[in-house]
Amino acid sequence: MLTHIDENGNARMVDITEKDKTFRVAEAQGSIIASKKIIQSVLKNINKKGDVLTVAKISGIQGAKRTSDLIPLCHSISLDSITVDFKIFEESFEIQCIAVAKCSGSTGVEMEAMTAVSISLLTVYDMCKGIDKGMIINNIILTKKTGGASGTWEKVK
Amino acid sequence: MLTHIDENGNARMVDITEKDKTFRVAEAQGSIIASKKIIQSVLKNINKKGDVLTVAKISGIQGAKRTSDLIPLCHSISLDSITVDFKIFEESFEIQCIAVAKCSGSTGVEMEAMTAVSISLLTVYDMCKGIDKGMIINNIILTKKTGGASGTWEKVK
Amino acid sequence: MLTHIDENGNARMVDITEKDKTFRVAEAQGSIIASKKIIQSVLKNINKKGDVLTVAKISGIQGAKRTSDLIPLCHSISLDSITVDFKIFEESFEIQCIAVAKCSGSTGVEMEAMTAVSISLLTVYDMCKGIDKGMIINNIILTKKTGGASGTWEKVK
Amino acid sequence: MLTHIDENGNARMVDITEKDKTFRVAEAQGSIIASKKIIQSVLKNINKKGDVLTVAKISGIQGAKRTSDLIPLCHSISLDSITVDFKIFEESFEIQCIAVAKCSGSTGVEMEAMTAVSISLLTVYDMCKGIDKGMIINNIILTKKTGGASGTWEKVK
Amino acid sequence: MLTHIDENGNARMVDITEKDKTFRVAEAQGSIIASKKIIQSVLKNINKKGDVLTVAKISGIQGAKRTSDLIPLCHSISLDSITVDFKIFEESFEIQCIAVAKCSGSTGVEMEAMTAVSISLLTVYDMCKGIDKGMIINNIILTKKTGGASGTWEKVK
Amino acid sequence: MLTHIDENGNARMVDITEKDKTFRVAEAQGSIIASKKIIQSVLKNINKKGDVLTVAKISGIQGAKRTSDLIPLCHSISLDSITVDFKIFEESFEIQCIAVAKCSGSTGVEMEAMTAVSISLLTVYDMCKGIDKGMIINNIILTKKTGGASGTWEKVK
Repeated sequence: MLTHIDENGNARMVDITEKDKTFRVAEAQGSIIASKKIIQSVLKNINKKGDVLTVAKISGIQGAKRTSDLIPLCHSISLDSITVDFKIFEESFEIQCIAVAKCSGSTGVEMEAMTAVSISLLTVYDMCKGIDKGMIINNIILTKKTGGASGTWEKVK
Repeated sequence: MLTHIDENGNARMVDITEKDKTFRVAEAQGSIIASKKIIQSVLKNINKKGDVLTVAKISGIQGAKRTSDLIPLCHSISLDSITVDFKIFEESFEIQCIAVAKCSGSTGVEMEAMTAVSISLLTVYDMCKGIDKGMIINNIILTKKTGGASGTWEKVK
Repeated sequence: MLTHIDENGNARMVDITEKDKTFRVAEAQGSIIASKKIIQSVLKNINKKGDVLTVAKISGIQGAKRTSDLIPLCHSISLDSITVDFKIFEESFEIQCIAVAKCSGSTGVEMEAMTAVSISLLTVYDMCKGIDKGMIINNIILTKKTGGASGTWEKVK
Repeated sequence: MLTHIDENGNARMVDITEKDKTFRVAEAQGSIIASKKIIQSVLKNINKKGDVLTVAKISGIQGAKRTSDLIPLCHSISLDSITVDFKIFEESFEIQCIAVAKCSGSTGVEMEAMTAVSISLLTVYDMCKGIDKGMIINNIILTKKTGGASGTWEKVK
Repeated sequence: MLTHIDENGNARMVDITEKDKTFRVAEAQGSIIASKKIIQSVLKNINKKGDVLTVAKISGIQGAKRTSDLIPLCHSISLDSITVDFKIFEESFEIQCIAVAKCSGSTGVEMEAMTAVSISLLTVYDMCKGIDKGMIINNIILTKKTGGASGTWEKVK
Repeated sequence: MLTHIDENGNARMVDITEKDKTFRVAEAQGSIIASKKIIQSVLKNINKKGDVLTVAKISGIQGAKRTSDLIPLCHSISLDSITVDFKIFEESFEIQCIAVAKCSGSTGVEMEAMTAVSISLLTVYDMCKGIDKGMIINNIILTKKTGGASGTWEKVK
């Protein structure tokens, strides 16, 4: 069942009036596949403790806070915490972004974690596209969520 | 060279004062891979001319207009046009999103097209996650851009 | 007494520190009066399960979530639910919009329901103005509210 | 023809690439009908040079600047000017709001003027609803627009 | 210790999951030093019960509600109250702005009060800069905060 | 004359219809005075090429792009460039922020530069307030502006 679609096929926001407030966590991740040159530039920038991934992280955190403004049927949520981290896999030319969102509320924070990853990777794309526009944003997934009526869920690997 | 990073490794917005105003187009695409059940639900909703992809499209259009608010070092751009379309590949359980952005200005609209695709796919995720949270947002790429000093660029397939 | 005006005639936000958190609902409605040609086009679009009213609905939902950003002295509220629906009265050339907002909080959701109706009708105007700019947005009223210290209120008909 | 709907009934933003940049003006108006007590309170506040209509005006100006963020298929426009004014008709218990928007651009400013009026009247409603929630927002219309390919249009009285 | 910086020097949002919800208040203030001519114009406008300080106040209230959107590592907070007031010191050519923010929540409202003061003073600057651009925004400080684990704090004079 | 106030003392946005599009630059600066401990922590973070000033810079750039949303009577401007830089004066316990905004348009970018400085300093305050809340944001001034009908202006030292 599409929960955001009523019996007539029309979009709707889910009514969370009856839902309990519970502690909820969601983890998401995704990657950008880039050219060797980009990966080396980013690594060099990191080695210089430069700004590329910091700017990307900040954009992801701010994007997460704006999730209900971006995704039409999302509820406004006061996040207790949102973290955004990166791992670089040199051999696969891959920059991985991992986000974890937490709240105590009546609805989950899956979209906040997914949005943080998406916006962070778009920002990496923006900052590196001067070198090569052929980057691929890939494999954005929810890896885990806990809390709420449906309890814990983990992505099958 | 990372154009958004100065010689000291610090982030910066590119100064476009000297850039010519030209007509610019950017095309991007990406996909969401979903379970058979989700694909069937979306198709059924489409067959009923339902709302899932309309809501996703609207979110992508609005996201594109907000690109400079989301991506820290992007310039504000007045888009002449932004289109968002979807194709469903039933056999590969894939919903593909294609966005085309156009402007007449001093800087490109690649990020507007990429942002439209990303936000649209996040909205599809949001609306279908009640069925199955295991969807994968995949392969978000710039496919083509024209205009500007660097001229036409196409993604090598 | 103008609750948003202090004894010196100056604007102020109401301090809701002492107000109880209660479950609150507000319903509002309003109409757009259009030409026969517009009503027929919208009906035809609906018969084709087209997008006009879906786009209007989404804009109303998003507008409701942004109420405190639009109306200077409104408090930020986490809505539990906001619904936007339409009725078409062919004989009076009228598209009616009905919104219902719900929250559990210290202040009411009247403005969220009123804003949802207003923005939805503006979006209908925008999408139909290519046919005829003479439409009239009319009769936007609060029809009912429940909850809070002042309890239930209904518009006298 | 619904210009924001394509031949398949799907929503779209109009592509303004080929449109000429011309000087454009749009005027809109609308009213709020209130109880005698509200009208007297607002007049008293005005006589004291109080804040009610100033706050409403500011909200309308800011709303106009955010039109493309609120109305999904509107283009971003840099307004040259937006004015919001009020007239009070004591005998008919009516506060009328008049907005005039101006730009030099490829698309009209009708929605900016209509949005300014709508948000201003919502703000009047918000500030006066403590006295009486039975106010009616009424008769929001475009009165005139000039410029653009379709030239001058005036509302038939 | 920089609470927004982890042990590796990287920015982070503070996780407030474990923090108690308490009633919190923060007071901030700041000034703008202007020319005699500006101070006289503002006073004349106030004597006429004009709009300068009302517009500045509204901008500060709206800015406070948007704090988490402006300050990257701030949490979204539902303010119970935000007040913005002004004092004019004619002899020192000084317009002082005082803001008080209140909430019941897991994190403080210092930044909301500080942001209200900053945006209000920027708006005074904007409205008066036609007379003289040499104004100085000065001495923006937190004067007091109460509530939360760290309790009451007052600025040493 | 207060350019944003009409002859009746009412606020208004300046109509820039008749103004020429010229190249315009504005420079602003301001400081935050902090405790020795904060200055040492920030310097240590910088020596580690940490994030404090990068986050502050990004917030200032994003704030500058949102100026017309924050300052009620500002026009929307497409910035060609906005830079934000910092200098640390160890002996006076001072972190100075300098912003330069550029555009080609009909109205100046003074408020964009001033807003960038204000938001950047608020972000420094936010990130350092865990050490000591007694910081002072000081001396935010426009230092220079060029372009437009009124030509070049420089702050008298």
